[in-house]
Amino acid sequence: VTSWIEIPASSPFPATNLPYGIVSKDGGRRHVAVAIGDQVLSLAAAANTGLLDDALRDELGVVDRAVFDAPSLNPFLAKGFDVWHAVRSRLLELVADASYEPALRSALVPRGDVTVHLPIEVADYVDFYSFAEHAGNVGKLFRPNQPPILPNWHRLPVGYHGRAGTVVVSGTDLVRPSGQRLIDDDLVYGPSIRLDIEAEVGFVVGTPSRLGEPVTTAGFDRHVFGAVLVNDWSARDLQKFEQVPLGPFLGKSFATSISPWVVPLEALAAARVPAPAQDPVPADYLLPAGSGYDLSLAVDWNGTIVSRPPFAAMYWTAAQQLAHLTANGASLRTGDLYASGTVSGPRPGGSGCFLELTWGGAEPVTLDDGSERVFLADGDTVTITATAPGADGTTIGFGEVTGTILPARG
Amino acid sequence: VTSWIEIPASSPFPATNLPYGIVSKDGGRRHVAVAIGDQVLSLAAAANTGLLDDALRDELGVVDRAVFDAPSLNPFLAKGFDVWHAVRSRLLELVADASYEPALRSALVPRGDVTVHLPIEVADYVDFYSFAEHAGNVGKLFRPNQPPILPNWHRLPVGYHGRAGTVVVSGTDLVRPSGQRLIDDDLVYGPSIRLDIEAEVGFVVGTPSRLGEPVTTAGFDRHVFGAVLVNDWSARDLQKFEQVPLGPFLGKSFATSISPWVVPLEALAAARVPAPAQDPVPADYLLPAGSGYDLSLAVDWNGTIVSRPPFAAMYWTAAQQLAHLTANGASLRTGDLYASGTVSGPRPGGSGCFLELTWGGAEPVTLDDGSERVFLADGDTVTITATAPGADGTTIGFGEVTGTILPARG
Repeated sequence: VTSWIEIPASSPFPATNLPYGIVSKDGGRRHVAVAIGDQVLSLAAAANTGLLDDALRDELGVVDRAVFDAPSLNPFLAKGFDVWHAVRSRLLELVADASYEPALRSALVPRGDVTVHLPIEVADYVDFYSFAEHAGNVGKLFRPNQPPILPNWHRLPVGYHGRAGTVVVSGTDLVRPSGQRLIDDDLVYGPSIRLDIEAEVGFVVGTPSRLGEPVTTAGFDRHVFGAVLVNDWSARDLQKFEQVPLGPFLGKSFATSISPWVVPLEALAAARVPAPAQDPVPADYLLPAGSGYDLSLAVDWNGTIVSRPPFAAMYWTAAQQLAHLTANGASLRTGDLYASGTVSGPRPGGSGCFLELTWGGAEPVTLDDGSERVFLADGDTVTITATAPGADGTTIGFGEVTGTILPARG
Repeated sequence: VTSWIEIPASSPFPATNLPYGIVSKDGGRRHVAVAIGDQVLSLAAAANTGLLDDALRDELGVVDRAVFDAPSLNPFLAKGFDVWHAVRSRLLELVADASYEPALRSALVPRGDVTVHLPIEVADYVDFYSFAEHAGNVGKLFRPNQPPILPNWHRLPVGYHGRAGTVVVSGTDLVRPSGQRLIDDDLVYGPSIRLDIEAEVGFVVGTPSRLGEPVTTAGFDRHVFGAVLVNDWSARDLQKFEQVPLGPFLGKSFATSISPWVVPLEALAAARVPAPAQDPVPADYLLPAGSGYDLSLAVDWNGTIVSRPPFAAMYWTAAQQLAHLTANGASLRTGDLYASGTVSGPRPGGSGCFLELTWGGAEPVTLDDGSERVFLADGDTVTITATAPGADGTTIGFGEVTGTILPARG
């Protein structure tokens, strides 16, 4: 794949990726851009050249350039699959053909010169729990006297609603949360001392659905626009005390970080792999299962890669999660975000959270600077990245989701 | 309390109430109105007379009449307590003083001539679980071999996030949800056969807060604008199978109905009562407890009042629920909605859900038409109402939240 835009060989953003985000420059207006190499291409500026008009024309014949001059991707996502597909196809042409360079050169800005923002206005946020290693490990650690995997887990994608209003963009600092925490039998109020991460992949809904009308697994490609990385920060001590019987609440709701670049599903076509075998056979509404995705995550703790969670192992596919989410007639809105659950393979090298990595704090990890950790210390920075096979033999990346822990207020 | 507007003696909307809603007439624009007697006063029209300008002037001196010419209350709620207070004070003058009749007569429309809409754009929806009778009864029915009230319940207001996108206005029909349901040991996929209600009171957040900065119980009056009735429809068979370990999901997310008129907290000042005694003493961040509210609910099932749940018995106050919700630094947004949990007193006369009323389906209720029920049948209509002491010896009402069950699709 060649482009008139210079793209470093190691870039997560080759011309086959073209993920969408929201940027601003020098305090100016937020607008839509795609990342390419070390630069971003402003789609607000590109649209003003008229070069995207044909792609933006919807079934009513309306060309709405303003979807790119917006502070979130939601107006563009609301246009639906046909417009997403046409715009991506057109962008692939524009970045490949040097004859467009004169028109678009001024729409390119070095990525280091722009600020990235939360890419979507999050409608509802759902978090699933679809990795067998994670569910089994957490079950052993949280419910040591019961079977680790519960009867519902192999029957449906277990999930719950999280707090949409505290989804933040990568780079946002995290204030250590306080709460009532239980360790052994000791209940105290104070800053969490078991602050953890969960490395996940999130799926962004573009096309809404109507209340009372379930979406099938086959509807995945038309309803879901793309994917981001998610760090579902978790205060394990708060979570443990609060979560029976209604599930996680304050242990999770203080913040959920997402990567700024939404990778379109179409860019991930080459990453599709068969879903893992499912036994027992799922209920009809969860079939056909759809595809898995061969994404390779890496978790960096203060500069040390501590694990490489494998996404392809996910038991329930993203299409099944979507179908389950709507099976009761619940409607989708543009901007809905649902996350995979903690991506985990065999521990410790595949662990997607530190609860698993350190076996509940019993097995510290040593970072490259010689320091030991079980959970997050103030000042720690965690950065999650991911790569996937792209078109034409390329490797595409998600960029990163990163965050640094600030001391508790107090 | 006198008004130049005729108000029937039995109206839930005397001149001391003035709840806010969103209405439209003959397919026209949605706008803000207050309900009074059998009429609504369009605040979009009233603002155009200039009579609300002084009240709408914010601390920057800006008068934004457009907050009332909006499809949700959110722009008005975002103005904050001082504007809410000033507008309510001004409205109380305007409806009391007959000299304003000539200017405002044309802003009055019979309530039967307008359509009511969802009053707020719901940001996040949280559902608590703060009635001891309900928690104890559900514990006995869902976990018969364990203590019904869990150790965390008397230490913090247990709650979880629900689906904001499926909060619907009173009058919306409900399609019976389908899912994987477990009854005894039999797992099947199909329409729920244990479809239930939960009668609750919801609190609407107006003033947002910043991430990382908890809101105290004393901040309740400045952050919370008002209250609505909530019916948290629940499919008990779906819920039972799915909810361990991450809490309720599809058993709840198909729909949550709210009443169209948001009763301002200031209208409920006379309904404040001391909170119930709390033992053990709550953690510092949950003190001072704030007030309870003496609201009397009634649950009507196809024309028969089957229970009268007493709200004043709520163990945790709405102020404590708000402080808990933000204790970990989670931020509030304008339009956040949090519900009390099922309002329940001693059964069966005080039960706020049919699971309790019929003791898990074991004790059918007989309706006035002679028919028997344990859970909801297709075509059933449930209507929840509530009254409260208002200013000057009046009784104010919440109006109603009603819904009718449609057969499952497919």
